[in-house]
Amino acid sequence: MALRDIEDQLGNLADASPAHVRGLIRRGEITEQTGGMALGFMQGNLAILPADLALDFARYCQRNPKPCPLVGVTDTGDPMLPTLGRDIDIRSDISAYNVYRDGELSDTINDITDLWRDDLVAFVLGCSYSFEEALLAGGVPMRHLEEDYLVSMYISNIQTVPAGPFHGPTVVSMRPMPMEEAIRAVEITARFPMTHGKPVHLGDPAEIGIGPLDQPAWGDVPHIRPGEVPVFWACGVTPQAAVMAAKPPLCITHRPGSMLITDIPSSRAS
Amino acid sequence: MALRDIEDQLGNLADASPAHVRGLIRRGEITEQTGGMALGFMQGNLAILPADLALDFARYCQRNPKPCPLVGVTDTGDPMLPTLGRDIDIRSDISAYNVYRDGELSDTINDITDLWRDDLVAFVLGCSYSFEEALLAGGVPMRHLEEDYLVSMYISNIQTVPAGPFHGPTVVSMRPMPMEEAIRAVEITARFPMTHGKPVHLGDPAEIGIGPLDQPAWGDVPHIRPGEVPVFWACGVTPQAAVMAAKPPLCITHRPGSMLITDIPSSRAS
Repeated sequence: MALRDIEDQLGNLADASPAHVRGLIRRGEITEQTGGMALGFMQGNLAILPADLALDFARYCQRNPKPCPLVGVTDTGDPMLPTLGRDIDIRSDISAYNVYRDGELSDTINDITDLWRDDLVAFVLGCSYSFEEALLAGGVPMRHLEEDYLVSMYISNIQTVPAGPFHGPTVVSMRPMPMEEAIRAVEITARFPMTHGKPVHLGDPAEIGIGPLDQPAWGDVPHIRPGEVPVFWACGVTPQAAVMAAKPPLCITHRPGSMLITDIPSSRAS
Repeated sequence: MALRDIEDQLGNLADASPAHVRGLIRRGEITEQTGGMALGFMQGNLAILPADLALDFARYCQRNPKPCPLVGVTDTGDPMLPTLGRDIDIRSDISAYNVYRDGELSDTINDITDLWRDDLVAFVLGCSYSFEEALLAGGVPMRHLEEDYLVSMYISNIQTVPAGPFHGPTVVSMRPMPMEEAIRAVEITARFPMTHGKPVHLGDPAEIGIGPLDQPAWGDVPHIRPGEVPVFWACGVTPQAAVMAAKPPLCITHRPGSMLITDIPSSRAS
């Protein structure tokens, strides 16, 4: 069922409460991406790992707060996330999960209740949706939203600080804009450390080890207009790539675009 | 040896580099409190715990960032802290340690090399020294510094979010000031989430469960002038009290006032 049909049936999900949208997801009535739903509330990326890797992953997040802003973590074996909202069950309240075994994608499913174990720990990391809302509210338009393409992502030469088996380069997302807007974007996103914070770089991509901008590692080729500068933010793909490279026996993430919708107002991501 | 004598011998430690002061501490030439040394660099509180409690303590810090701003954590069994500065050895680079066994103070010593074990994890938490520097620089004087008494601390009724065995009320420090300065203090400290951030309360102490201000739980009785309002910040005593209440078999902290001096500029605590 397309998102449009759901909207016709259920009213505009942009204005729905997080609890309402999570209820639809839990009952299997939404399996779509969550962008644009429950606007005004923080959405987060998911990584579920066995407990014996959890301390190292917590350290990895602490040491790399820009790409890995840790906003919530479950107790070991407990699927509930009371610090992020009422009655959030991480086994069912995300619309699509990727299951990785030994670092390889083994399955994409809509509920992980059958896979949950007493030794699992779920980590939720802030994502760029909140700062994009703030940028729009601050009068900074974003090309990939205006022209409906995927934000362009690149592998920089900025190495993350390793922790146990977790290591790797910082992956960055890039948004092109005139310098005047880039300066405003720095000011606005600096207030959102929980959703990647201020840019890691602005201007010449080569200074952070990035080649031609029309060859992104993930996402679409950007549409850059004359006189615009590329603005680079640390990206949530960074911890995902680090986890995949560590090849844990089991890791469960959200499917890209299908984030956890929390009860935390986006404005509180600061 | 009094701090004054050391200063006579070694020059003014306020202007010394963090590495220089840590070297003196490591060689046992400073066993004093570190306030006023290596000004401009972040100082941190210490908590060392066995690895089997470390994940829960990391969760406790993540869930309570205002009283427990985690700024650094070692690898399990590794006493070095490269993310906080060059050649920091947590076994020797703090001037005085409190050793707790089963929640009871058992010893105060100047070096813990003989106590270090392969299963220990050291956590460093931001402390209020950095935001006090920023307040002074922003033209907000503080009574306890002007009149040389210990900042007043109280037990609020704001409960922390528990994690495993760690739980308890938020302990707050209080600084009295005119409302005009209180407003500026909010603005300034809001920029320092790594050192407790903006106040948790301002005004009537009863609203956060605090009784007469002349009966602090720790520190000295405050000197409050007519027309001043009390301003309350989350305090690093919070995690210390939570750890003591959990009665871990072994816990090593800094002795109050003898903090770890990092290489991180205080201005970067934001």
